[in-house]
Amino acid sequence: MSKDHSSLSTSHGNQQPADAPEQSPAMNRRGFLGKAAVVASGAALTACAPGEQAATGGESAGVITGPRVQWRIASSFPRSLDTLYGQTELLAERVSALTEGRFTLRAYPAGELVPGLEVMDAVQQGTIQAAQTVSYYFSGKNPALVLDSTMPFGLTPRQQGAWLQEGGGKELIRELYADFGIINFPGGNTGAQMGGWFKREINSIGDVNGLKMRIPGAGGDVMNRLGATVQVLAGGDIYPALERGAIDAAEWVGPYDDEKLGFNTAAPFYYYPGWWEPGPEMVFQVNQAAWDALPATYKEVFEYASRSVQATLVQKYDALNGPALQRLIESGTQLRRFSDDIMAAARTAATDIAEEAASATPAYRRVYDQWKNFRDVSFRWFSTNELAYQNFTYGGMQQG
Amino acid sequence: MSKDHSSLSTSHGNQQPADAPEQSPAMNRRGFLGKAAVVASGAALTACAPGEQAATGGESAGVITGPRVQWRIASSFPRSLDTLYGQTELLAERVSALTEGRFTLRAYPAGELVPGLEVMDAVQQGTIQAAQTVSYYFSGKNPALVLDSTMPFGLTPRQQGAWLQEGGGKELIRELYADFGIINFPGGNTGAQMGGWFKREINSIGDVNGLKMRIPGAGGDVMNRLGATVQVLAGGDIYPALERGAIDAAEWVGPYDDEKLGFNTAAPFYYYPGWWEPGPEMVFQVNQAAWDALPATYKEVFEYASRSVQATLVQKYDALNGPALQRLIESGTQLRRFSDDIMAAARTAATDIAEEAASATPAYRRVYDQWKNFRDVSFRWFSTNELAYQNFTYGGMQQG
Repeated sequence: MSKDHSSLSTSHGNQQPADAPEQSPAMNRRGFLGKAAVVASGAALTACAPGEQAATGGESAGVITGPRVQWRIASSFPRSLDTLYGQTELLAERVSALTEGRFTLRAYPAGELVPGLEVMDAVQQGTIQAAQTVSYYFSGKNPALVLDSTMPFGLTPRQQGAWLQEGGGKELIRELYADFGIINFPGGNTGAQMGGWFKREINSIGDVNGLKMRIPGAGGDVMNRLGATVQVLAGGDIYPALERGAIDAAEWVGPYDDEKLGFNTAAPFYYYPGWWEPGPEMVFQVNQAAWDALPATYKEVFEYASRSVQATLVQKYDALNGPALQRLIESGTQLRRFSDDIMAAARTAATDIAEEAASATPAYRRVYDQWKNFRDVSFRWFSTNELAYQNFTYGGMQQG
Repeated sequence: MSKDHSSLSTSHGNQQPADAPEQSPAMNRRGFLGKAAVVASGAALTACAPGEQAATGGESAGVITGPRVQWRIASSFPRSLDTLYGQTELLAERVSALTEGRFTLRAYPAGELVPGLEVMDAVQQGTIQAAQTVSYYFSGKNPALVLDSTMPFGLTPRQQGAWLQEGGGKELIRELYADFGIINFPGGNTGAQMGGWFKREINSIGDVNGLKMRIPGAGGDVMNRLGATVQVLAGGDIYPALERGAIDAAEWVGPYDDEKLGFNTAAPFYYYPGWWEPGPEMVFQVNQAAWDALPATYKEVFEYASRSVQATLVQKYDALNGPALQRLIESGTQLRRFSDDIMAAARTAATDIAEEAASATPAYRRVYDQWKNFRDVSFRWFSTNELAYQNFTYGGMQQG
């Protein structure tokens, strides 16, 4: 997690696993709270006199008399990523609204209380009660955690949500998190990500060889096997590296978030689809002891508030990405589709990597095999009805 | 809404607008509560002593001391359609869980308290406080209400959710419902429906001419323009008509629900996609006066419980439809894709019908024009990234 983007690393073993932008410009506030400020606090549980009416803005009559519970929730995202970090604030707002401010989550963007990639440690240690993050950031702790988020050539956003909430996925992932004293709640999906920004066109698998690309995580693993020189850079370091040509390409999220970072002024070609993150799901991690200490009704509050927040994220992205893509195109961005030969080679490499992980780790095998069955049945169903509808109805509308 | 399926009607002006199966076998209980039993009740608001602990199963400590509020919610669906009617029970469960049983919704399947297609009248009159239904059932009250549900060649499930919750759609629909003293909450999506069951193959637009098909609502309007003889039959009457050949074809929902009604034993060909209902959204209708009388916190409870329930429906269908389709195929069902010339003619007719409605009704124009803009931007975005991913990844997996 070096801030020094001049030291481009090709290491995979220690690569920063994700897009967590601790070093982005918006995150310099990280400095004002050092690690020493992360004191152990646990859940603050203050019993109130029964019948006490909570004073909340504008409400005429309180109905809650439960104990005051104050949690701290840290995000892996900076405030500037308003959709991603916004999930933390949205959860805090809804939990508070459902309890008249008696159960509160104080939200911290990445770096203010805990560095973005250290939130899971902080939850495990109980220095914070909850985190909003992405499980694949923590594949170093258990490689199977990536299945909670997204897999190259894996489930779409709808399928990931269905697998987690109705297909047994959440329960399997909870077995993984239990080893860390954490309970997980699905946190919302970004939609399929884009393939990123390229300074030159790549038309075939040969053009990937030697490509210097910022692409962390599982996508980076695949690109590495395809011969790319994979770079690991945090969010704030990508633009300058791309602009001056230290890297040839970089992926981030999608039109709405990418536009904010200005990548379109540093590279003309915007590739799709982002096959390495076809349906990335966020997660809310909660310290198990803090969870166990909650009144039963506050557990229900957290459960259904988080489910409502889960649903909101993809609704926001689906409303924001289309207009953002139009603006990018109007500003000169040229869309390009990855060629079939690149995607076919990438899928082969991705499958090899997953099978190797399953062979190496029993926990990965357990989740992966169940996930694969869900994926295969889902792909057959979606490829029939939903895909036929979209192919006919969108015909001739694709951009670029 | 005749129960007599031997009198097949081709009328469009009075056609039963939807799939509400009041006459299905499961709904015979409708008789036991006549209309006389539907007495005006309003919201039962019973103030409890502050600090009183609600007794709820297994909970050690109550945190709610608000008033007891008992609502009745009627569904347009029978108990046998466990996913659709299940939304009513799920909302009731979650609202109760969030309030320790102090705010309760007593759930009634279609016909027990109110006939399935009369729930909106009952909400308007205040004889029930809420309903779980589909807005297109009530296009006779305001044709623009169909936009709350789904449009032929319209938004996909994700796009419909994004439009309603983040694209201004819900607010536009609320203007329509305000005329009836009702406030609406999006209620969940079935996913794209299937094209239905056909006793013989239809290969071109010529084969549609004279086809006797059970297809209500907007799909029926389009099929009528294409020369089909459109039939209006409630759920329980479809199977016998199809089995004995009184009709040539019938559409219902999708694999999971269709399998229950056994259509596969009456017709061999199962067509897709269901272009007339690409993303049908349910709705919770609430009597405005009952809503206004709620404590502010109970409003938050209803809002976020309903958002969580909205998210659940498509997750259930996405997990259930794939395995159901596999079972149908294994039992001999033959999948067929509607030909491009049929879909092209249908899209032209659907566009004509919508433009005519917009010209005739200012409220329709207001919603439709805003919806159209959202649709066009969404289609361009989804046709680029998400569609490219699916077309590559599902390649060769489609069934039938």
